[in-house]
Amino acid sequence: MTILLYELAGADTSRPFSPHCWKTVLSLAHKGLDFERRTVPFTRVGAIEGGISRTVPVIRDGDKVVPDSFSIALYLDETYPTRPSLFGGPGGIAAARFIERWSQLTVHPYLGAAALLDIHSMLAAEDQAYFRDSREKRFGKRLEEVPLDRERRLAAFRATLEPLRSMLAYQPFIGGASPLFADYIVFGAFQWMRISSPFQVLLADDPVAVWFERCLDLHGGLGRSVSAAT
Amino acid sequence: MTILLYELAGADTSRPFSPHCWKTVLSLAHKGLDFERRTVPFTRVGAIEGGISRTVPVIRDGDKVVPDSFSIALYLDETYPTRPSLFGGPGGIAAARFIERWSQLTVHPYLGAAALLDIHSMLAAEDQAYFRDSREKRFGKRLEEVPLDRERRLAAFRATLEPLRSMLAYQPFIGGASPLFADYIVFGAFQWMRISSPFQVLLADDPVAVWFERCLDLHGGLGRSVSAAT
Repeated sequence: MTILLYELAGADTSRPFSPHCWKTVLSLAHKGLDFERRTVPFTRVGAIEGGISRTVPVIRDGDKVVPDSFSIALYLDETYPTRPSLFGGPGGIAAARFIERWSQLTVHPYLGAAALLDIHSMLAAEDQAYFRDSREKRFGKRLEEVPLDRERRLAAFRATLEPLRSMLAYQPFIGGASPLFADYIVFGAFQWMRISSPFQVLLADDPVAVWFERCLDLHGGLGRSVSAAT
Repeated sequence: MTILLYELAGADTSRPFSPHCWKTVLSLAHKGLDFERRTVPFTRVGAIEGGISRTVPVIRDGDKVVPDSFSIALYLDETYPTRPSLFGGPGGIAAARFIERWSQLTVHPYLGAAALLDIHSMLAAEDQAYFRDSREKRFGKRLEEVPLDRERRLAAFRATLEPLRSMLAYQPFIGGASPLFADYIVFGAFQWMRISSPFQVLLADDPVAVWFERCLDLHGGLGRSVSAAT
């Protein structure tokens, strides 16, 4: 049976950009499961499946509805244990949580601020109003002011990626010789940036950029099905 | 057969402090293996087992000699597969490398600088000469100057621990419900600090401090067998 994936999109529904939804897109592809992507704008997320979640992704798999990219990955591994694992055992599940928190607290804050205005410009009018209001409260300043220092902060951001960069001298993926959900966690953040903003955060020869390109190639180049922002 | 562990020590051989050796001490205890700890000063590390390594830990297990804490953990899991795993599967092995790089590049630089003079004062005279020379080259300044800004940099250091702190809201160990080598990696760094310096880097109610205390309790309180520096 085809799994239904509810995924965030802006005015152009052919360019879904949510980092967390991209984690689930690659998770479903990794498991080799059939899935249908259904886009929702920010202001309609709360109405999905009777209001089960304030955020996407949400999947429906037959009678089962599961929100949250990490919970979805766990659900998929439990439900389809004969398909390729997303975690590579219990140690991989536990460590993926550390990597999720690292990505969320190290990678997301800079990228989210750097792309904030670009994301806003991708949204439909009613979503723009919601987005401006919620993000201006979060950042404590006007939307237009948030990305202003992205050039100044870029070198420091690149330095925070050093653990990932250094790890890539040992192995091609966070998952080891092949990718796991831990890769999709960090991939989601850079894919969000790639689709929403023309601002280049990585130098082309950065091992992190080379790893990201490798992730874009996975599962038949699924990540490249949406072009980079120009 | 008893495994022999070569471990770094200063003038007082009852207070081994090396972060990497502590990783291996807990790894051996985790596997429930008998081991004998043999201390070596900095200046005699290169002579161990015919000069197999420039660094410790090194273990001898019968005919097999293995250097490097990560390689030792892999060796122990491969050689003693029926004893508790140090990695919890292939995903755990791969992710442990990320955590090692994170610890080495985020936790070690600050702690190593903050405790530098304290470590120097623990060493025997000939080791002090080697240590001063090698560390002054590495830091590009006099040993006495390196820890001077540790108070000023402390808040920023604590902030870099946020991924670990945030993960601890989900699970008690990096390994999940129970510890794995990934925990011993980060434990080693804080144990190094605890044994060599009275400088307190963590507030007592910091979840990272609570996790560290939990690690000190493991394997019969093995980490507490050396008292904190005063």
